[in-house]
Amino acid sequence: MIIVLKPQCTQDQLQEFSSSLQQQYNVKVNAWFGTQSTVLGLIGDTSVVDIDYISAQDIVESVKRVQEPYKKANRKFHPDNTVVTLPTGQKIGDGSIALMAGPCSVESEAQICKVAESVKASGAQFLRGGAFKPRTSPYAFQGLKAEGLELLKEARKKTGLPIVTEIMRVSHIELFEDVDIIQVGARNMQNFELLKELGRINKPILLKRGLSSTIEELLMSAEYIMAGGNDQVILCERGIRTYETYTRNTLDISAVPILKKLSHLPVIVDPSHASGISWLVEPLAMAAVAAGADGLIIEVHNDPSRALSDGAQSLTPQQFDSVAKRIFEVGEAFGRTH
Amino acid sequence: MIIVLKPQCTQDQLQEFSSSLQQQYNVKVNAWFGTQSTVLGLIGDTSVVDIDYISAQDIVESVKRVQEPYKKANRKFHPDNTVVTLPTGQKIGDGSIALMAGPCSVESEAQICKVAESVKASGAQFLRGGAFKPRTSPYAFQGLKAEGLELLKEARKKTGLPIVTEIMRVSHIELFEDVDIIQVGARNMQNFELLKELGRINKPILLKRGLSSTIEELLMSAEYIMAGGNDQVILCERGIRTYETYTRNTLDISAVPILKKLSHLPVIVDPSHASGISWLVEPLAMAAVAAGADGLIIEVHNDPSRALSDGAQSLTPQQFDSVAKRIFEVGEAFGRTH
Amino acid sequence: MIIVLKPQCTQDQLQEFSSSLQQQYNVKVNAWFGTQSTVLGLIGDTSVVDIDYISAQDIVESVKRVQEPYKKANRKFHPDNTVVTLPTGQKIGDGSIALMAGPCSVESEAQICKVAESVKASGAQFLRGGAFKPRTSPYAFQGLKAEGLELLKEARKKTGLPIVTEIMRVSHIELFEDVDIIQVGARNMQNFELLKELGRINKPILLKRGLSSTIEELLMSAEYIMAGGNDQVILCERGIRTYETYTRNTLDISAVPILKKLSHLPVIVDPSHASGISWLVEPLAMAAVAAGADGLIIEVHNDPSRALSDGAQSLTPQQFDSVAKRIFEVGEAFGRTH
Amino acid sequence: MIIVLKPQCTQDQLQEFSSSLQQQYNVKVNAWFGTQSTVLGLIGDTSVVDIDYISAQDIVESVKRVQEPYKKANRKFHPDNTVVTLPTGQKIGDGSIALMAGPCSVESEAQICKVAESVKASGAQFLRGGAFKPRTSPYAFQGLKAEGLELLKEARKKTGLPIVTEIMRVSHIELFEDVDIIQVGARNMQNFELLKELGRINKPILLKRGLSSTIEELLMSAEYIMAGGNDQVILCERGIRTYETYTRNTLDISAVPILKKLSHLPVIVDPSHASGISWLVEPLAMAAVAAGADGLIIEVHNDPSRALSDGAQSLTPQQFDSVAKRIFEVGEAFGRTH
Repeated sequence: MIIVLKPQCTQDQLQEFSSSLQQQYNVKVNAWFGTQSTVLGLIGDTSVVDIDYISAQDIVESVKRVQEPYKKANRKFHPDNTVVTLPTGQKIGDGSIALMAGPCSVESEAQICKVAESVKASGAQFLRGGAFKPRTSPYAFQGLKAEGLELLKEARKKTGLPIVTEIMRVSHIELFEDVDIIQVGARNMQNFELLKELGRINKPILLKRGLSSTIEELLMSAEYIMAGGNDQVILCERGIRTYETYTRNTLDISAVPILKKLSHLPVIVDPSHASGISWLVEPLAMAAVAAGADGLIIEVHNDPSRALSDGAQSLTPQQFDSVAKRIFEVGEAFGRTH
Repeated sequence: MIIVLKPQCTQDQLQEFSSSLQQQYNVKVNAWFGTQSTVLGLIGDTSVVDIDYISAQDIVESVKRVQEPYKKANRKFHPDNTVVTLPTGQKIGDGSIALMAGPCSVESEAQICKVAESVKASGAQFLRGGAFKPRTSPYAFQGLKAEGLELLKEARKKTGLPIVTEIMRVSHIELFEDVDIIQVGARNMQNFELLKELGRINKPILLKRGLSSTIEELLMSAEYIMAGGNDQVILCERGIRTYETYTRNTLDISAVPILKKLSHLPVIVDPSHASGISWLVEPLAMAAVAAGADGLIIEVHNDPSRALSDGAQSLTPQQFDSVAKRIFEVGEAFGRTH
Repeated sequence: MIIVLKPQCTQDQLQEFSSSLQQQYNVKVNAWFGTQSTVLGLIGDTSVVDIDYISAQDIVESVKRVQEPYKKANRKFHPDNTVVTLPTGQKIGDGSIALMAGPCSVESEAQICKVAESVKASGAQFLRGGAFKPRTSPYAFQGLKAEGLELLKEARKKTGLPIVTEIMRVSHIELFEDVDIIQVGARNMQNFELLKELGRINKPILLKRGLSSTIEELLMSAEYIMAGGNDQVILCERGIRTYETYTRNTLDISAVPILKKLSHLPVIVDPSHASGISWLVEPLAMAAVAAGADGLIIEVHNDPSRALSDGAQSLTPQQFDSVAKRIFEVGEAFGRTH
Repeated sequence: MIIVLKPQCTQDQLQEFSSSLQQQYNVKVNAWFGTQSTVLGLIGDTSVVDIDYISAQDIVESVKRVQEPYKKANRKFHPDNTVVTLPTGQKIGDGSIALMAGPCSVESEAQICKVAESVKASGAQFLRGGAFKPRTSPYAFQGLKAEGLELLKEARKKTGLPIVTEIMRVSHIELFEDVDIIQVGARNMQNFELLKELGRINKPILLKRGLSSTIEELLMSAEYIMAGGNDQVILCERGIRTYETYTRNTLDISAVPILKKLSHLPVIVDPSHASGISWLVEPLAMAAVAAGADGLIIEVHNDPSRALSDGAQSLTPQQFDSVAKRIFEVGEAFGRTH
C-alpha cells in the first residue's frame, strides 16, 4: 500500500503515523521523500488495512493499494481453478460449459416440469427457477415461495436436474436446505448479513454481480462467503447499469476474462437479465462462451407471453433448443468439453 | 398506460389481448389505428398492471406508463406534505430543517456521549450513529452491534436526542424496538424482505437511495414500506454512482425538488456519504437547503483521524458547529423555521 | 409518435395544438380520451418531428416515439446489408471479417512499414495508424500530422494495404483526399460540422461511438453523414464510459447485434480502446466475432513499451499474429468467410 | 508520480527504465523495495510525463499521479481567483453573481431584442443566444447561423448587454470576432483543434463540461486553451450523463466547490441544460449559488411553447424575473455582491 502524505506533514506527525501503522497492522513502513510530498510504502499483508481509516488521517493526501483486498478469492494465492462439484456429479469450472435454464418464476407443477424436461432434452445440466422473487413493485407477483421450492424439487425428481434458486432472507436458509445451488441476486450482492450466513453452510452459492458493483466489490462479496468457510462460490456477470436505455442493463463482457484472471472461482453469464430482450440472448451467449465463461444461465418459459415475470427476456423451449445447440457447437471451437 | 403493438399483429390477436387485459386488470382498453402500428390505451387504475407482463407479449412493441406505479407515496393522491413526528415531539417535514449528526460508527460510551452533547449544543435535533455497519470488506470493523445500540440509548438518555441507526437484518427488528428512527442503508434499499417487515411496524423509517437506484425505484421502495401500513417514511438522497472519481458518489441535487414534487414524504440529504470528503460537506449542505431539503444527516466524529470507519468524510465537532450555524442562517434566507 | 397531454388541457388547446401539428409536419393527428389524460397519435412520417418542440408545449405531459428518428441508416427502409467496397477491392460487411491493424500513432517510416508488413503477413487487410492524435493533455505527443499521412501512404505503397486514419478538423479534408477510410474518433462523434462535411465526400467513413453516446445517437451521427449523400459509413463500437475502473471503458458487446438489427451499416469493434489493456484484446475480439461484428480494429506496435501513445493496449506483432489466427479460426465456426 | 513495478521486474530492467525516465523527462527517480513489488517515485515536474507511456511498459503494474497534470489552470500555482473582465466592464469571478440569460436559439430580431430587454430588466448582465446550433438530428433546426450573430449584435446595441454564443467550427473564428464571450459546447469540449485555435485569440471562452467528462478532463481542456496563451476561461457545469432518466442530465453540484478548489478560474452553472425541465431551473439555480458558483446561464424564451429548440427547459420572461430576484436575494445571504 502506497500512502501519499500532504506537503505540510511534519516530521513528528510522520513518525507518529508510521509507528501507529506498524503496531496496528503488523506491517513495515518505508518512507520516501519527494520535492512536493512524502510517500509511505507498507510492507506485509495489507489486505486487512482499512483504506478508509488511512485516508481519514489529516496528513494523508491519497492512498493506493498495490495488493488486492481479497485473499481467499484471489488467484495469486490459489493458482488452480476452483471446480464446483455437486454431490450428483455435475461440475462448474472444469472446462465444460455449465448450462442452467428454466423460468424466471415457478408458476405451477405442470409448467416447471414441462420446462425442466424440455431444457434437459436440449442439453441443460441445471434447472433454474424462482420461488421467492425480488420485484421492484410491492404490487407485482412475488413468487410461489415455499410452494415454489417444492415444485422445483418435484421437477428435479422427474428429470434429475439439480436446482438453482434465489434466496432473499437469512431466515429462509433452512427452507433451502435441499436446494442444490443457492442464488444470491444482484440486489442482495451487498446484503452482508445474508452473505455471512451463507458462508457458514456447505453448499454452492451462485453470486450475481450487483447492478452498479465493481468487479472488485463482487470479489469482496465472494470473500465474505469464503471468509466464513464456504469456498464453493460461482460468480455471475448479469449486466451493469449504464446510461444506455436500449437494453435493460449493459453486459460487461470484459468482466469474464478479468474475473478469470483475478480469481480462481468459476464465472458464468446471464444473458437474459443482462439484455432483457429475448432475441439478444443468442448473440450474448455466443460472446460469453467466446470470452471464456464457464457457463450460462438462461431464462426459458413454455409460454413467455403468459409468464408471470420477465417474459420479455425468456426463450421458448424451441428457441432455447436452437441456442443450446449453438452454445455447444461454438464451445467446441473453443476447445470446451460437453 | 399506452401499449404500442407490432405492425404484424392481427385483428384476432388484438381482440384476444384486449379481452385478457380487461379481465385481468379491470381496465378499459381503447385502440387507435396508425399507418404503421396500432396503439392501445388502458383506462382505470393501471398501477397494478405488470409492465413486464405486457412487454413480454409477442405482439407488443413497447409500453409506456402514463400513471406512476406508486400510489401511497404519490403526491397526486396525498397533496399535503407528510410530517413525521416523534413521540418526543421532533418533526421532520414541517418546514424546519431537521439536523441529524453523529459518528459513522459508535465506538465507545465516552465517544458517543461526547459527540452527542457536542452536536446537540450546535443545534442538531437527532443523533445518528452506526451500531451494525455494512462494510465492503469482511475484514473491516463491522460495528459494536447490540452493544452499540445500548451506547446510543445511553447517549440519548444524557442528551434527550432521539437516535437514528441502521438495520441490516430482519431478525434484528426486535433489537431495534427502542430506536427512534430506523435507517435502511443504500445497499439494502431493494432488500424487499426487510422493507416488507418494516412496513409492519409503527416507527419512522429513514430510507436511503441505492447507489444506482432511480428516483422511481426509491419511491417504489418507500411504497413497499407504506403498502404494509407504515406511512412514516423519510427519503434520503446520498449520492449516486457515476463515472466521476473525484467524489465517492455524485450528489444528485435535482432529486430533492423532484422527490418533493412527486411525493408527499420528507426528503433529507446526506452530504457526508455523497462526497466522502469532509471539506465538501459544507457547500453540499448549503446546496441541499437551497434545493428544498427537509433536513440533513451529517457525520461528526470527535477525532476523525482515529475513526474506525469513514473518517475521511467526518467533521470535527468544531467544524460541525460552524456548518450547523451556516445551515440555520441560510435556512432563514429560505424562510425555514428553526 | 404518441403524445400524452396534461389532465388540465382544455378542448380548445387540444384543437389548436392538433391543427398546428398537422400543418407543421404534414401528419394526421388522432386523439384518444382516457380518464386521467388525453393521448394524441401522429400518423405519417414523424422522423422530422422535433421531439423537443413537442415536449416544450405547456399542455404536453410526455412524448414517445414509435418510429426511429433516423431514416437513411434504418434497416426498415433498407433491408439489405450495406457492403462498403474500396476501389482496391477490400470489402466490409460482406460476411468476411475485416481486420484493421496498426499502431496508435505513426512514429517513423521504419516503424509504420515494419508494422504494416507484419500485420499484412498475419492476415490484416487494412492498415490503421494515427497521424493527427486527439490527446487529453496539450503537453502529450500530438502525432506527426501531415508527415504521418505521407508515411502511411508509403506503407500502403509497400504493402498494398488500404489505410485508415483519423481526421480532427474540417480544414484537413483535402489533406485526407488520398486516405482510403477516414476515421471519426469518439470525441468527435457529435462534431456535427465535421460530419456534415464528410457527408459531402465520396469515401468510406469509420464512425466511432462517443464515450457516452447512446446507440441511437451513434445512428443519428451516421445519419448526418448519410443525409449529405455519403452512404459509406462503418459503425464502430469502442467501449462506453461507466463507473467500472478496471478497464479504460466498458465494451458494450450488445451494441453489435443491436446495431446490426436497427441498421444495414457494417459494424466493427475496437477491443484495444474498449479495454485499454493488451491482454484483454484477444478475449474481447473473440466475443466481438461471436456477437456478429463485421470486423475488428486492433492496435499493434513493434515495441509497445516505446510507443508514443497507448502502448498499454497495443499488441506486439507476434501477439497479433496469434490473435489474428484465432479470429479467423473462430470466424469459421460462425460461418464467416476469410 | 508513483510507479508500481511488476514482481518479476529484474534489476537490469529497473536500471534501464530509471535511466530512460531521468533522461526523457528530466526528473529524479527514487526506488523503494517492498516484499512483493518495487515502487518508483518521480521527483520534479511530472505534469509533462505521459501516463500512457509509463503504463505501457512491460514491467509496470500501475501508475499514480501525485501532481495534477494541469498547470496553468491549477490553483496551486495561481492562488488568486481569475476575474474575467470584459472591455465593457462586466466581470465574472469577482464575487458577484454573473447572470447570463436568453433563448436557446436566436429566431428573429423581434424575438431576441424582446428577450434581451426583458432579461436586462430582470438583472441579467449578459445575453446568451444560439446562432449555430448542435442538434442530434440532421433534420432539426440548425440555427440562423451568421444571420443569428447579426441579430445578437442588434440586441446588444439596443440593450448594452454583451453577448455569449456558441462556436462549432474553427473556420468560424473570424465570424465571431465581434462576439463578447465565445462558448464551447459540451459536445466540443474535447474538440482539441478548436480549443487550440481559441487559445490563440484574446477573448473570454465559456467552456462547458462534456456529457461524460471528468472534472480533471474539463480542466485539461481549459489547459489546452490556456497553453495557447488565452487565460480568460470560464468553466461551466451543465450536468453529466448518468443512468437517471427523470432529468436530461444529472447536475453534478459537487463540481462547483471542487473546481473552485482545484482551479482559479471562474465557475458557472447551467441549470437549464442540466435538467431539461423548466420548473427545476429555480431550485437548481438556488443550489448553484449556495455551492459557490460565480454565475448562472439560463434559457429564457418569450414563448417557450413555440421555441425552435429546447423549449421544455426555457423560462418565460416573467418566470425568469422571479427566479432572478430569488438568485440575487439568496446571493446576499451568501455575501455575494450584486
